[in-house]
Parts: sequence; structure tokens; C-alpha cells
Amino acid sequence: MTRIGILGYGNLGRGVELAIRQNDDMELAAVYTRRDPASVSIATEGVPVRSVADLETGNEDIDVLILCGGSATDLPEQTPKYAALYNVVDSFDTHANIPTHFANVDAAARNARTCALISCGWDPGLFSLNRLYANCILPQGADYTFWGRGVSQGHSDALRRIPGVADARQYTIPVPAALDAVRAGDNPQLTTRQKHTRECWVVLEEGADAQAVEKQIVEMPNYFDEYDVTVNFISQEELDRDHAGLPHGGFVIRTGTTAGGNDCRIEYSLDLGSNPEFTACVLVSYARAVARLASEGAKGCKTVFDIAPAYLSPVSGEELRAHML
Amino acid sequence: MTRIGILGYGNLGRGVELAIRQNDDMELAAVYTRRDPASVSIATEGVPVRSVADLETGNEDIDVLILCGGSATDLPEQTPKYAALYNVVDSFDTHANIPTHFANVDAAARNARTCALISCGWDPGLFSLNRLYANCILPQGADYTFWGRGVSQGHSDALRRIPGVADARQYTIPVPAALDAVRAGDNPQLTTRQKHTRECWVVLEEGADAQAVEKQIVEMPNYFDEYDVTVNFISQEELDRDHAGLPHGGFVIRTGTTAGGNDCRIEYSLDLGSNPEFTACVLVSYARAVARLASEGAKGCKTVFDIAPAYLSPVSGEELRAHML
Repeated sequence: MTRIGILGYGNLGRGVELAIRQNDDMELAAVYTRRDPASVSIATEGVPVRSVADLETGNEDIDVLILCGGSATDLPEQTPKYAALYNVVDSFDTHANIPTHFANVDAAARNARTCALISCGWDPGLFSLNRLYANCILPQGADYTFWGRGVSQGHSDALRRIPGVADARQYTIPVPAALDAVRAGDNPQLTTRQKHTRECWVVLEEGADAQAVEKQIVEMPNYFDEYDVTVNFISQEELDRDHAGLPHGGFVIRTGTTAGGNDCRIEYSLDLGSNPEFTACVLVSYARAVARLASEGAKGCKTVFDIAPAYLSPVSGEELRAHML
Repeated sequence: MTRIGILGYGNLGRGVELAIRQNDDMELAAVYTRRDPASVSIATEGVPVRSVADLETGNEDIDVLILCGGSATDLPEQTPKYAALYNVVDSFDTHANIPTHFANVDAAARNARTCALISCGWDPGLFSLNRLYANCILPQGADYTFWGRGVSQGHSDALRRIPGVADARQYTIPVPAALDAVRAGDNPQLTTRQKHTRECWVVLEEGADAQAVEKQIVEMPNYFDEYDVTVNFISQEELDRDHAGLPHGGFVIRTGTTAGGNDCRIEYSLDLGSNPEFTACVLVSYARAVARLASEGAKGCKTVFDIAPAYLSPVSGEELRAHML
């Protein structure tokens, strides 16, 4: 059994707890929290909730610690810190800062002879893998990544920060015509506006000015101003009833031409009822890989690029070759 | 530079020759043939065509030998034989015989301390990878593989063996309703007939009885009797004009449910203008990986499951993390 610790019990942490239940070779050892452990109740009976301070002894009985904090402030500090004590997996997703994060985690893990995996999930993660495989196989071609239809938590948060907005949900939606043009092998150069639209569902505070809120939304720099945006005002009841989920997904497409002049398309897509629960499933598979690599003496920081697919599976190489190749 | 040898100069061997041109770190060292080398002219100037007998010295100056023969009789003999002398890659695709083939090649490669990769291409190969990743990530779910629209060479050959048939081409086509049901998450149990249809384009010999030929086709055991088949009779000119290519492709879909009860779908698809040229692109990427693994001291037989994705790329880990993760 691979014993998993979870640090951080938000949507992702809860997703990891659930994902472990679908993997018979893994068990949840403990959930660690910065809150008062007595105030946190988890879904799994008989598993302790412990203080994050308990991790610092380095003596917790876990094979892999899955870090479920945010990329903005939690993971840049936590992943190197805990990589010095445990094998760790995180889902760090600030693409521009991955090289720095990798260097910090790698130094900590090499020094402590632990094994760490960063930037695991679906993007970065499964989408990255598909970009890599497709680029290696079709060196002459063009890459396209589309996200959605799905809830962007960052954009939903941005809506909620607008004065007069009580609650909100934002969906990112790929433009069908752009997807069609890419699939047709037209190699289009697409602007931000041409690739995705943004759909907002907004609950106003009592007395708020809908027109003023809408103007603030559509003009918000970076978040909305470069997109075609639709804003829908609804009641809190409607939001809770129709937009409670966190679906997401997207497409990685590479179109290319062989040296013989034949067009080829490689397409990967995800359609996810729950973004955090699916991300958690990816993290748990890779936690298995990290536990194995660590038991073989691997150390330092890895990414999904560095891990042979068979390490993710509980099944033997022999069985994989017989039934899945 | 990684020096590649090609054994067998049919469609796949020619595809490998072309694919090497798109990879600056690879060069074609020689093409090996069972025919008289003087009778084989290849597309690349200045590269020798040599006799297969020259390989048997074990002294050819190649880093990886890509075996481009057939799975029925060539590869079961050739891959173990040449794995005892060189690092090798093959595209062995008789799924049921993979365990035996693996064992034979592994024994030869371990003994000779070479590195071998079998069953590389798109199915087995990229489709297998996607089945594996998707199964690890969504342990509770169902797998579906569809092939086409594409030319099945085995079925085209079967048509050509019918008395009265001068030439023929057979397309395998996924049934759209089956794809839709799978994508909708209905987890359908699909019969052979429900998954694919078969479309035949047949040139009759002069005086042949079209009705008798059609009856033989639709009743042919295994090849056609379990499918809905359409038979179209055309002239040789039309066949040559409209059906000269070898397109193929298909879909690997896994639908599953997280432990939180949310449905997720992972879908991978290929749309290939040329089956042999694309397969060759995959072989060449993996030849790079095999050359690297061998230079690190790896030995024995591998499959795509055993090879970390980064090994396929000519780009450094640092660059991959910065630009593709």
C-alpha cells in the first residue's frame, strides 16, 4: 500500500481523498491543514486530520505528500519545503514560473534524496504530455490548445471582486469556428478573441446597477477586454441550482505534414464533470509513480515528461503488454 | 547525430526514410534489403543500399536499426535476430502474440546488452499509451477504440484474393451513432457490427460476375461477415485516381466516473493522410529514445509504456519545461 498525505483540504484536497478510494493499492494516511485540525472534518472515517506543523518533524508515516494548495503563494513555498522531508507531488500551474519552481524543488529534493513531481494535472500535465508527444512525432506542424467549456475559477473570482456583484460563475468556451479551422488543417493564426468566448453568470447585490457592472466586466483588462463576453444576470437560487459544478476540459490539437506531403492531425480532448476531482485522479496516479521511483532510488524533481507511463499503473508490465498494448 | 539503418524498403521503410529528413539530429546510414541491392533505388542521394547479409557481421555503423517488415513472418524472426547485434525498433502489431515476441526479443537483447523497442506505431503505440494513461487516471470506466476512416491493407488484400477481382481497396469506418453513444457516456455494449462498417471499392476482371463477387465479399468469414458492408464496382482508372492514398486514423475513448460521481471523458484521435508515413514518424521518434536509453546503458526489450516522454524529444528538459509544460 502506498500511504498518501494530503496537505490542504479545499476542492482539490477533497478530490484527492475521493480518488484514493478508486485505487486499491493506495490509502489515505492523513490530511494536514493550516486550520485547527479539530475544525476540519473529512469524508473518510478513521483517518486523522493533523496540523501542518506535524509534517515538519519529517517523521509522518507517509510515502507521498500531495500538496493541494494554490500556485500563487502556497506551492512556491510549500513544495520545496516539504520536498526536503517527503516525496511530494504538486499541481503548480503558473506556466511562466515553472522553471524557477522546478529549480527550487529540485535543489531541495536532491539534497534530501527525495523524489518530487511538479506541475501535475491536466494543464500542465496531460495536455503537456500530448503537446510533447505530438511535437516529437510531427516536427513540421502547428500546436493549438483550447480550454473549455469550463468554469474558470480565476475569472469567477475576478467577477466577484466587482462592487455590486454578490456571486458569479464564468465559463470559458472555445469558438467552434476556430476549432473547425484548426481541424481542417488550415493552420490559422488565431487571436485571443478568435479562440475563446467568455460567458458570465452574475448575481447582483440588492440595488446594484446592472449596466455599470456589465461595463466593468467587459472592459476589465486581461480578464475580459480581449474577448467576446456575454453577461447574464440571474438570482442566487438559479446560480446555485444551475452552476454549482466545476466542469472543465479542452483540446490539444497538432496538425502537421509528413515529409511525403501528407497532412496528419493528432487531437486530444478532455470533457470533465469536475475539474478538481479529475485533477486529483491525475495526481493520485502520479503519486503511485513517485512512490515507485523513490523506492528505486530516484531523487530530485521530475515532471510528467520524465515518467514512463507504466509507472502510473498498478498492473504489472506483463499484464500491460498482454492487455493494453 | 543518431545513425539509423532501415531493414525493408516497402511503404513503411520509405516512410522512415522520409521521416528522418524532418529530424535534424538523425541521419539515414543505410537501407538494407533482401533483394539485390543494385535493384533497389532509394529517395536519398549518397546513402547506400546494402544487403541484409551485411547486417549479420554486427559491424554496420548504425545506432538503431528500424525493422520495417511485416508482423506475420518477418518480425518474429528478424527482431530477436537483429536485437542480438544492434539496438532495434519494430512495429510488431499482432496484438495476441506480443507477449511471446517480447520474451524472444528481450532474451536476445539482454544477452547482447542492446536496447530494443517493439510494437511501436499508432496501434499498438500511441493508442496503447492513451489506453494506459486513461485507465490509470480513471480506474472506474470503459474503454473504446475505433479505427478509421482508413484503408485496411489486410482487408484490401482479402478482396484481391477473390477470383474475378483485379484490384480493390477497403475502408474501415467507425459508425457515427456508436461514437456518439460512447461520447455521451452511455457506456454502450457494442457488437462488431455496431462499431464499424466496411466500404469496398472493387475493380473486376473482364467478364467477372459482379453479383458472385459481391456475395463472396459480404459472406467472407471474419473479414466481412460480421459487418455491414458496401461494395462499389469501379474502373482501374477510378481506383488509381480516387483511392491511391493510404489514409487511416481512429479514436481511443475512455469514459469514467470519479468517486465523487462526476462523469469524465478522455478522447484521443488521429486523422492521418498516410498511415505508413505517420507510423514511420512514430518509429523515428522512438528510435531517438532507444539510442539515448542505450547510451545510458539500458538493455533488454521495452515498449512505449516503458519510455519516459522526454526521451522522444531532441529538445533539452529545461527547454521542454519552459515551453511545453
